[in-house]
Amino acid sequence: MEKIRVVVWNEHIQDKNQADVLEVYPDGMNAALKKGITEGNDLFEVTEATQDMPEHGLTEEVLNNTDVLIWWAHCGHEGVSDEVVARVIRHVQAGMGFIALHSAHYSKPFTRLLGTTGRLIWRESGDTEVLWNVNPFHPITKGIGEKFILPAEETYGEFFDVPKPDDNIFIGWFSGGEVFRSGLTFTRGLGKIFYFQPGHETNPTFYNKDYLTVVKNAIQWANPGREKVFLGAPWVPKTIEDNK
Amino acid sequence: MEKIRVVVWNEHIQDKNQADVLEVYPDGMNAALKKGITEGNDLFEVTEATQDMPEHGLTEEVLNNTDVLIWWAHCGHEGVSDEVVARVIRHVQAGMGFIALHSAHYSKPFTRLLGTTGRLIWRESGDTEVLWNVNPFHPITKGIGEKFILPAEETYGEFFDVPKPDDNIFIGWFSGGEVFRSGLTFTRGLGKIFYFQPGHETNPTFYNKDYLTVVKNAIQWANPGREKVFLGAPWVPKTIEDNK
Amino acid sequence: MEKIRVVVWNEHIQDKNQADVLEVYPDGMNAALKKGITEGNDLFEVTEATQDMPEHGLTEEVLNNTDVLIWWAHCGHEGVSDEVVARVIRHVQAGMGFIALHSAHYSKPFTRLLGTTGRLIWRESGDTEVLWNVNPFHPITKGIGEKFILPAEETYGEFFDVPKPDDNIFIGWFSGGEVFRSGLTFTRGLGKIFYFQPGHETNPTFYNKDYLTVVKNAIQWANPGREKVFLGAPWVPKTIEDNK
Amino acid sequence: MEKIRVVVWNEHIQDKNQADVLEVYPDGMNAALKKGITEGNDLFEVTEATQDMPEHGLTEEVLNNTDVLIWWAHCGHEGVSDEVVARVIRHVQAGMGFIALHSAHYSKPFTRLLGTTGRLIWRESGDTEVLWNVNPFHPITKGIGEKFILPAEETYGEFFDVPKPDDNIFIGWFSGGEVFRSGLTFTRGLGKIFYFQPGHETNPTFYNKDYLTVVKNAIQWANPGREKVFLGAPWVPKTIEDNK
Repeated sequence: MEKIRVVVWNEHIQDKNQADVLEVYPDGMNAALKKGITEGNDLFEVTEATQDMPEHGLTEEVLNNTDVLIWWAHCGHEGVSDEVVARVIRHVQAGMGFIALHSAHYSKPFTRLLGTTGRLIWRESGDTEVLWNVNPFHPITKGIGEKFILPAEETYGEFFDVPKPDDNIFIGWFSGGEVFRSGLTFTRGLGKIFYFQPGHETNPTFYNKDYLTVVKNAIQWANPGREKVFLGAPWVPKTIEDNK
Repeated sequence: MEKIRVVVWNEHIQDKNQADVLEVYPDGMNAALKKGITEGNDLFEVTEATQDMPEHGLTEEVLNNTDVLIWWAHCGHEGVSDEVVARVIRHVQAGMGFIALHSAHYSKPFTRLLGTTGRLIWRESGDTEVLWNVNPFHPITKGIGEKFILPAEETYGEFFDVPKPDDNIFIGWFSGGEVFRSGLTFTRGLGKIFYFQPGHETNPTFYNKDYLTVVKNAIQWANPGREKVFLGAPWVPKTIEDNK
Repeated sequence: MEKIRVVVWNEHIQDKNQADVLEVYPDGMNAALKKGITEGNDLFEVTEATQDMPEHGLTEEVLNNTDVLIWWAHCGHEGVSDEVVARVIRHVQAGMGFIALHSAHYSKPFTRLLGTTGRLIWRESGDTEVLWNVNPFHPITKGIGEKFILPAEETYGEFFDVPKPDDNIFIGWFSGGEVFRSGLTFTRGLGKIFYFQPGHETNPTFYNKDYLTVVKNAIQWANPGREKVFLGAPWVPKTIEDNK
Repeated sequence: MEKIRVVVWNEHIQDKNQADVLEVYPDGMNAALKKGITEGNDLFEVTEATQDMPEHGLTEEVLNNTDVLIWWAHCGHEGVSDEVVARVIRHVQAGMGFIALHSAHYSKPFTRLLGTTGRLIWRESGDTEVLWNVNPFHPITKGIGEKFILPAEETYGEFFDVPKPDDNIFIGWFSGGEVFRSGLTFTRGLGKIFYFQPGHETNPTFYNKDYLTVVKNAIQWANPGREKVFLGAPWVPKTIEDNK
């Protein structure tokens, strides 16, 4: 079986300079996630890309060879070039899977694919999160039971401003009193999109076994499994003869 | 403006015999709910009906004069006659609004309209419930802010076996660790359906101001505002001439 | 790879007695469909069942060994026993795929799983039908281009009284002026449901290559690929300790 | 009752210079539509705006006083300024209704709100279109029976690349063999969106009584009926105390 070609994209800002982040992710969040999803399996061929690379590491050539793009970002949203964002969107619409993690809810590709603000409420207070599986027969929850627990995560709360999802996969319970639609799927053109809320930069979530199971499932679910199709207006209008 | 004709249907079993229920609802749950939704407004004309009445109080004539039917039930599901259930379903399909409260998730009309088991997990431990408003611009949440709190309710938890809803209105957070899709809308034919999770027989939920606001909003939302239409196969097949 | 266990259920009434049907399907519609979906592939293990068999051929044992049930029916809907229908529904909710063909829109299992009347308009006038593929990236349309054509089918038209589908797969265009949502998917519990409009008893649709491609795709899509799970109330209520 | 404040936005290019368009719409398409939706009722206060005006006639002040924006465009999509588009999107997300007519399927506001290409197939051959009402109980179809007919329209066909709609309202049948999901609703943030396919510049569709009924219904449906809410990140993170 051919390997799924994954790009782990990380803005790589706080995990370069900020002590409390480096303590958890000394080699960068991208390296940690790459390791987490590749260890012990032979499913994926993973490339890392970061915002400080030329064209943010997402040239047309890179995307032409990408089946699924994972996006983590937090402080650098505004610095991402509109041209690269338009390119990412075009590839998603043509079939590339897109997995937006945590604060990517405010990223340009995510909000522009969905057409909403991505607004939510939040708090950093080390709450425990229980992620309840509200779609136990979806491929993304394979191997996950009725719930899994993250001892500490940034609290996200409703109202989360996203369009009606195709499917609600997880609902997060936070010990401080909030709930959040923590796993949501969307489709845009041929492209499958998964939003997954956990992944705060000062919590060791990228090392959590259940979290990694979900991400690995999501990659396989979002993999188009076919050539990309760049839809556009047909060059020539259709004739009635075409319907014979 | 014409009043909306509401029937509050209650199995009326535990609130007839069981001490801890009678302590909260000495005159029956139906009486409490009727009082709660009619006090201080002139919107509804409310009739009460109970399982012990002939045809459970839901004759064809009663339903012909009902815009919205509210259903509360717990122990008596199996005792509800299939004929009356079929009648209720026929009226919902023709436009009657249907509001299923709490353990009505296992009732015959609810599970047969939805086609699923209505399965959930549950616990009676006096948890506090925070109901988060995940659809702040839906008519059912008018007057409700970002959330409201019930000091004690029976805990319901996921996985809740219902079809994909039209809209998710509330998500409940329980102090013991559960979450639940506590407000959900569905459509069947012309009929609008609202499932609302709170309303346990030993908790004073039917006296809660926010709860009553939601129920009153839901009645207005579910009101068909038009004659019922009993759909069926046309008696006569269509001809091509009908398309001129 | 294990074969998918399929039951082709046919009421087998008109194709036993009616000359114009026997002319098209001399060995019965079930035999024709079985042949059509098994020829040239090794994917399915197909059993035939008909309404005149004991328990309509759908005993608990048969369903225990069925992954996907195909249902064709027209005149005999009322004669199908409620007990067998309840059994079928229970197996669908537990994961069995269910494919409803043509006039099965009025069958007991279909209308009870969906909770609507299944009403539509219709005409027998030998219209040509063009089935447009409105979900070109769905597994059910694999191998189908932008459309396929049936030279003659019974005309079905809107309004089709079904709940909001998970996905709209085909829209049918009829030469006499009608349109119809000809391919629709639904989920009930763990079970996947596909409604597919063509398949009139006096038209040779069961021999059409594109039609058979769609049915074969739908079987693979609806195959649960896992043990059935019969959901029900947990015997024992949950405790807070369960969330640790 | 307060009037709904509507802006009819028209690129106003072909209806300024092109003979076959001017023959049908001598005073411009915006003037025709304004007249059509205001005649004989007192519901709307309609302003016209065109692409050649400063800021395309859609200044922040204008949008602050707009409840529903109607958008017709065809040749000029690329010339619409990104800044104005971002402003329109921000107002839709905050609650402004948005009605996209005909070739607005390729306009910047529509494709950016939806996140898809808006691709479809098309042909100018004077086909008759029959618009079938597939949502007969939706407010947008009030006063429309099972269908209405446009003697000639530009043919649009599937596959139409849009996200899963909230509701499918109309399906169009074209005499040349195509079908199209001709009326679709979406929500983005607080804003309601209606796409309506007919309205070709050389056909007198803006004078059609049924067409105007639908547009007038859609305006009333999309009217937010409340102050706009510009969602964004809360300035201050939430504290646990907020949940008391």
